[in-house]
Amino acid sequence: MKATFIGAGNVATHMAKALANSKIDISYIYSRNIQNANILANQLNATATDNINNINSNSDIYIISISDNAIEAVSEALSNVDGIVVHTSGATSIDALRKHHRRGVLYPCMSFTKSIDFDFRTTPLLIEASDIAIRDILMDIANKISDAKVMYATSEQRRKLHVAAVIASNFTNHLLHLADEYITKNGLDFELLKPLVRQTIEKALATNAYDAQTGPARRNDTKTIDSHLSLIADDEHLVHIYKTLTDSIINSYKQQ
Amino acid sequence: MKATFIGAGNVATHMAKALANSKIDISYIYSRNIQNANILANQLNATATDNINNINSNSDIYIISISDNAIEAVSEALSNVDGIVVHTSGATSIDALRKHHRRGVLYPCMSFTKSIDFDFRTTPLLIEASDIAIRDILMDIANKISDAKVMYATSEQRRKLHVAAVIASNFTNHLLHLADEYITKNGLDFELLKPLVRQTIEKALATNAYDAQTGPARRNDTKTIDSHLSLIADDEHLVHIYKTLTDSIINSYKQQ
Repeated sequence: MKATFIGAGNVATHMAKALANSKIDISYIYSRNIQNANILANQLNATATDNINNINSNSDIYIISISDNAIEAVSEALSNVDGIVVHTSGATSIDALRKHHRRGVLYPCMSFTKSIDFDFRTTPLLIEASDIAIRDILMDIANKISDAKVMYATSEQRRKLHVAAVIASNFTNHLLHLADEYITKNGLDFELLKPLVRQTIEKALATNAYDAQTGPARRNDTKTIDSHLSLIADDEHLVHIYKTLTDSIINSYKQQ
Repeated sequence: MKATFIGAGNVATHMAKALANSKIDISYIYSRNIQNANILANQLNATATDNINNINSNSDIYIISISDNAIEAVSEALSNVDGIVVHTSGATSIDALRKHHRRGVLYPCMSFTKSIDFDFRTTPLLIEASDIAIRDILMDIANKISDAKVMYATSEQRRKLHVAAVIASNFTNHLLHLADEYITKNGLDFELLKPLVRQTIEKALATNAYDAQTGPARRNDTKTIDSHLSLIADDEHLVHIYKTLTDSIINSYKQQ
């Protein structure tokens, strides 16, 4: 099996290496930036190019892994290919590839950094395809490169997973920043909270977050909540975050 | 060295076992509920009692580990003791122990569950004391039972750490619940997000959350943000959370 990558960014880099590790030949790496294409191609014995017309037509799969807003235009520019054309975006519909009869999506639910080694086998993948035969091929590829959950999902489900990923990943990261900022400003060290954070997350993932919830909001302990609010009263922004999440927790458990 | 515990709950259970593991004798376990006192005392070769007057006066330290709102009253009821009297609460001032000349605080920054085994040595501890000699004794005890960070902090700093713990632990756990609830309602499986969550948290704790931030709000990608908001538009509550945290992220990076 032969694969070509359109793009040489964070996702392309990690996915191309994962495919190569599963004995799939990487033929071409295309990037507008030939240096980026070269760096990745050199690691995979592939040919680098910055001219999309130079890509050979004999790959079995063409993987478009670039900014969401460029996918459709690049798909339109990609001609004379017989293989399956897929993109790797969570937020983009399969319809962006409508020019190609044999099309699909191979979306890794993970955040990658080019320069940081990462075991791709822990990455869940969502598949979408224009027909059942292609779905089976993509499922097979996904299961070759990952030991994590692989499943079929529509474009809309994929977009919804993306919303949930923002909540569970981007927003939780931001709360860690706010806690870090507050504690540092007050002469304490965020190191003090790291074991608690690790334990909280592991507990939530091992059981479920709803049952694992603790703290003053969970107990509707208004005395402690008021004492916290008076302690942070000079930070309007933190008060807003504190109130919003406290109300949300109280609300979640009142409904039961 | 001899210690007595007033309380047989989650914190008392784990701290008493940690002290016993460090060759500190546990003399008495007091609890209003004699069954709880018995369960813990049996594991530690200690004497259980539900009568606070039965506690012997020859312990070196008396550790009050009960509900915040009961600490002061129990401290007042504890008489004829010469040892150091401490509590284990993050949110309670050392002044609640004012009856006792030799007093302090030994606050573990961790969430414990009685029935779940836990390696206490990963628990950071905050110390407060009525004088330097007691501070040194408490520091010594803390360093015996934990390999994590141990530091001196005032009652106000401890309360501030508690606020930060609520943000970093209780609030992040709640976001995981909201993501889980949303994704499950939409026919997907929260398993898909677990590897991403683990990776996000590990990255934030290994580097720092401010630099590690990714996602549409970090990029101020209003197109994706608007698309997410329209996707969740029928869930007013989730929209409120999404907007609050998105605005907070945008605001954090705009200030730079």
